[in-house]
Amino acid sequence: MLMKTVQSIVDTRLLCRLQRYQGNNVGLVPTMGFLHEGHIRLVRQARRDNDFLVVSIFVNPTQFSPSEDFSTYPRNFEQDQSLLADEGVDLIFCPSTEEMYSSENSTFVEVTGQLTTNLCAISRPHFFCGVASVVAKLFNIIDPHRAYFGQKDAQQLAVIKRMVRDLNFDIEIVSVPIVRDDDGLAKSSRNAYLNPDQRKSSTVLFRALQHAEMLIIDGERNSGRILAEMEKVIQATEYARIDYIDIVCTNSFESQEYINGEVLIAVAVWIADTRLIDNIQIDLSNLTS
Amino acid sequence: MLMKTVQSIVDTRLLCRLQRYQGNNVGLVPTMGFLHEGHIRLVRQARRDNDFLVVSIFVNPTQFSPSEDFSTYPRNFEQDQSLLADEGVDLIFCPSTEEMYSSENSTFVEVTGQLTTNLCAISRPHFFCGVASVVAKLFNIIDPHRAYFGQKDAQQLAVIKRMVRDLNFDIEIVSVPIVRDDDGLAKSSRNAYLNPDQRKSSTVLFRALQHAEMLIIDGERNSGRILAEMEKVIQATEYARIDYIDIVCTNSFESQEYINGEVLIAVAVWIADTRLIDNIQIDLSNLTS
Repeated sequence: MLMKTVQSIVDTRLLCRLQRYQGNNVGLVPTMGFLHEGHIRLVRQARRDNDFLVVSIFVNPTQFSPSEDFSTYPRNFEQDQSLLADEGVDLIFCPSTEEMYSSENSTFVEVTGQLTTNLCAISRPHFFCGVASVVAKLFNIIDPHRAYFGQKDAQQLAVIKRMVRDLNFDIEIVSVPIVRDDDGLAKSSRNAYLNPDQRKSSTVLFRALQHAEMLIIDGERNSGRILAEMEKVIQATEYARIDYIDIVCTNSFESQEYINGEVLIAVAVWIADTRLIDNIQIDLSNLTS
Repeated sequence: MLMKTVQSIVDTRLLCRLQRYQGNNVGLVPTMGFLHEGHIRLVRQARRDNDFLVVSIFVNPTQFSPSEDFSTYPRNFEQDQSLLADEGVDLIFCPSTEEMYSSENSTFVEVTGQLTTNLCAISRPHFFCGVASVVAKLFNIIDPHRAYFGQKDAQQLAVIKRMVRDLNFDIEIVSVPIVRDDDGLAKSSRNAYLNPDQRKSSTVLFRALQHAEMLIIDGERNSGRILAEMEKVIQATEYARIDYIDIVCTNSFESQEYINGEVLIAVAVWIADTRLIDNIQIDLSNLTS
């Protein structure tokens, strides 16, 4: 089947509904475009799982604050289109801002509580509401059987899962592992902002996470001591400034004083003017077995 | 077809989806039960319009504030069931609170702006968020082609329409006119709270609205003067205490200083301990033609 590129909500809905009524499974990979190997991993997994595969490309203004990089967020639609055609995607949904948001738009989906209190929610207070709202819209337009999100945005993934459960969306949320460059930097569209020197510094996120993992393997269970060690690693790096580092429960996202069960170690670091995030999950029962 | 009564979300979803896949139109009338002729009018219209008709009965705790009447809200499930069987309803969806809300429920749908700023939003600040959230859940569970709401809850109807538009629900919202007792009192489950004396006083809502309409027909266009006249009518009535009276644009719900185009005249009045609401819509172009 030839890949379709559709801007219209009505047409996209019709094409997806037709597939569903023909008994085909519909998969959705929501993206903001400027695709990298992390996205491609999502797309490949979704391609394997579903009969009809939709990738949305929409740089969603409501998840950026006025001081953030909405206008400069990298875009390259032709390259995205060519990559997705190569992956056998069936439909690219790429609406304009006007198509997605009427000028009177005033409805928002809020996931409240611990899940949206710490980590990225501190420096990006409107982010998760913007994400949850636009994903709810995409879900209602495409009505997929499955939707794919990267583990790199671990808090976003948890927020979407919570929204799906709380609002009774009948959609399976599939989490896909982080893809990294050879030196450990997690793939991100924002890596394009880094100059060569900053790019070298940017490996510090994964190095700090690996250092934490090593400490835990060696028996350290005190989060404060682990975070202090991570802080040292990051502070010793040129251009690097910590936004947050935290060790949280993978379900509740509450900060953990002592490591127990499954934890997420999450970091957000500014490399000069570029904010990068990364994380690893550690399951103590896997370590000790 | 025999009417089914189902508590489970999973089973309800399955039954509705089956109908949709068989090419049948699904209609939904969301209610809190204790059905009266106002509900029956919704049900009859929905019965005419759809192949498969679902009525939900769920007294939604999240739209009541702690000081409101959630625990005493009237319930009579057997009577509701018998009424709905007589109307040829296909499925009653009557989940428990636990079925609808997990203990960790933390996702809410908020319609912001003018629409949820005045009228009922003033004395019931959490009401519309509770309504929008539970209706979003019902929409995701039942996935109806059409959903039916009474014009009596005019602001709720506007909020639901806005939510459907903003979150791209593919559902037609059908508005159904108010049903009144012979003396003008709008049908409401809460009318059951009134003792005979209070019941007599309760006609004041419609009398005040009719008085306003008469003034407008007579040429009055100044909202302040109309509202002052309505106030006199209500204040002269035993047990009656105004919660609000307002004249608003039927689209934006902004208060109108002068009457122009289409307006909604809306009242909320306490009759002793019972809060009742009512409204009429007036289209000047109809009056003058």
